[in-house]
Amino acid sequence: MAPKVLLIGIGGVGSIAAYTLKANGAEVTAIARSSYDVLKENGFTIESLDYGKVENFKPDHVYKDVAEAAKERGPFDYIVVTTKNIPDVAPVEKMIEKAYSKDTAIVLLENGVGIDRSMFKAYPDATIISGVTMISSTLYGTTVKHVGSDTVSFGPFLNPSLEKEPQVAKAKAFTALYHNEHNGAKYDEDVKYIRWRKLVYNGAINTTCAITNVDAGRLELFGGMDKVARPAMREILAIAKADGVDLPEDIMDKMIRSDDGEYYPPSMLIDIRKNQYTEYKVILGTALSIAEEKGVPAPVCTILCDLLEVIQMRTMESRGKIVLPEKRPLPADNFKIEFQD
Amino acid sequence: MAPKVLLIGIGGVGSIAAYTLKANGAEVTAIARSSYDVLKENGFTIESLDYGKVENFKPDHVYKDVAEAAKERGPFDYIVVTTKNIPDVAPVEKMIEKAYSKDTAIVLLENGVGIDRSMFKAYPDATIISGVTMISSTLYGTTVKHVGSDTVSFGPFLNPSLEKEPQVAKAKAFTALYHNEHNGAKYDEDVKYIRWRKLVYNGAINTTCAITNVDAGRLELFGGMDKVARPAMREILAIAKADGVDLPEDIMDKMIRSDDGEYYPPSMLIDIRKNQYTEYKVILGTALSIAEEKGVPAPVCTILCDLLEVIQMRTMESRGKIVLPEKRPLPADNFKIEFQD
Repeated sequence: MAPKVLLIGIGGVGSIAAYTLKANGAEVTAIARSSYDVLKENGFTIESLDYGKVENFKPDHVYKDVAEAAKERGPFDYIVVTTKNIPDVAPVEKMIEKAYSKDTAIVLLENGVGIDRSMFKAYPDATIISGVTMISSTLYGTTVKHVGSDTVSFGPFLNPSLEKEPQVAKAKAFTALYHNEHNGAKYDEDVKYIRWRKLVYNGAINTTCAITNVDAGRLELFGGMDKVARPAMREILAIAKADGVDLPEDIMDKMIRSDDGEYYPPSMLIDIRKNQYTEYKVILGTALSIAEEKGVPAPVCTILCDLLEVIQMRTMESRGKIVLPEKRPLPADNFKIEFQD
Repeated sequence: MAPKVLLIGIGGVGSIAAYTLKANGAEVTAIARSSYDVLKENGFTIESLDYGKVENFKPDHVYKDVAEAAKERGPFDYIVVTTKNIPDVAPVEKMIEKAYSKDTAIVLLENGVGIDRSMFKAYPDATIISGVTMISSTLYGTTVKHVGSDTVSFGPFLNPSLEKEPQVAKAKAFTALYHNEHNGAKYDEDVKYIRWRKLVYNGAINTTCAITNVDAGRLELFGGMDKVARPAMREILAIAKADGVDLPEDIMDKMIRSDDGEYYPPSMLIDIRKNQYTEYKVILGTALSIAEEKGVPAPVCTILCDLLEVIQMRTMESRGKIVLPEKRPLPADNFKIEFQD
């Protein structure tokens, strides 16, 4: 029987994941919101570096609601989460609740470090697979433009209360299901290393670009790369080290040079420009929690994170997620912000 | 003979200064750019808390060009500078060059600390008067809305190579020329204290609001006041102390509470929203130079300043002040940003 996959979040990364898994023989059920009608009718056009041009791509099944998908198509072998990871707005553990069982492995194909923590807290018996991809793929309307090969690394977020071997086996099985001759999918057990490595870019360059509203090229030309992003990178290296991951010093220059030739707008900058939520919590918030636990000072990253928090709340207000009183409340009013659903 | 004043920068603050000085008997020559035609023809409407409604206000003379004004109306007793202080775009010392002589006192009715430094460097024989105002006055089109009484403090930026007494006398004479029964203008010799005091607000709250694009009320509700602005304030207090100014601890809460009841957008936030240059250099840059000289660590203010520098260059690019190559330059290209006039 074909392995059954529930895929949540069918954007740039999710579409390629859905296409890949379906092409490799999985039965893919996708959860879609704004793209639901399109995926039911004509499907997406995919222009992919790995797969060429694909017209009318549709997953096997599409639902708006996880509970309904689980009822009609579950139980699933894998829940693959490819949404942006915004715990302050839509926690992943809540999102998958109705489809989860301990026999379903969760694949977090998402940014950030420490993103397994809240998951294991909610699902202590879970098998969770980490996916970190260097893919460059964006959904524009109904067309997916995929311009950087899908070199994704999968590995187990080891659950200490389970045997290691079945977790490794599950991560390897999923890697095998995802891998094909067109992509660079591979199994890599050193999940922490891969995640911290990517965070050197995301925690420092992505965040600073988002705050200043300039792309990575301009950030460098305008002096912010050396004055802000590089000190933030140094802190991230120190936190990673305290967390057991020893990244080489030259990773910083590699990251700074990784978009060479391009005025590249990183994901959080795009989020800000589209008035969307950023993943600042899983990109800096969780890293700073680890820093605090390990006693590593991280003043630059802390301020970047605090500024991004204010910006996130500005976005929440403009999207109606929070509503402020007409008159600015005084401390004596004991006003507390309430978050709307 | 009526004292002759050259006033540079006829916006919200400058209009009230021009009106006040003219009403008090000075001959006021104003330099105007975008308002030149209006001031030549109908003049401004002023709706002033201090002076009531004034129609068709015009200074005695209006020029576009300082050299021309100096030639036809000089020499002046005072050059009153009420522009925003943007040394990276329009240095004040250059702006006044054609009207300056050592018998002309310069009045800097502007924000920031250490703003006398570049002036004394350019004009070692100058008498320079500091003006710090708590006025709330804004020019909207051709109407000046003045809603907070003009409680301005004047005092000498003491020039160490001149006798003290004549400098004090000059500052007192200007205060007398500015003071009337409607405003709260006063002489205060402790210029440094007044400037550092105002910087507690401007260096911390104004800057953080500008970076996060939220007003002071939201900054507080969204957590940024305590997490970012307050630590920045602590640093400013420490720098001020090293510079000989002992501000009381409770100044921080006074500043935080100074806009109570209002979602107040501070000046730099308004600048950002209008795609205008901010005064970040005189508000944080000079303070940080002093911090460096005195060996006071100021990590939070440093990052805020570095972020504002990137944002300033973004504004410069969007206003055509700098032009970037179409393709992102590599380090090997040795590209240097050139600033257009």
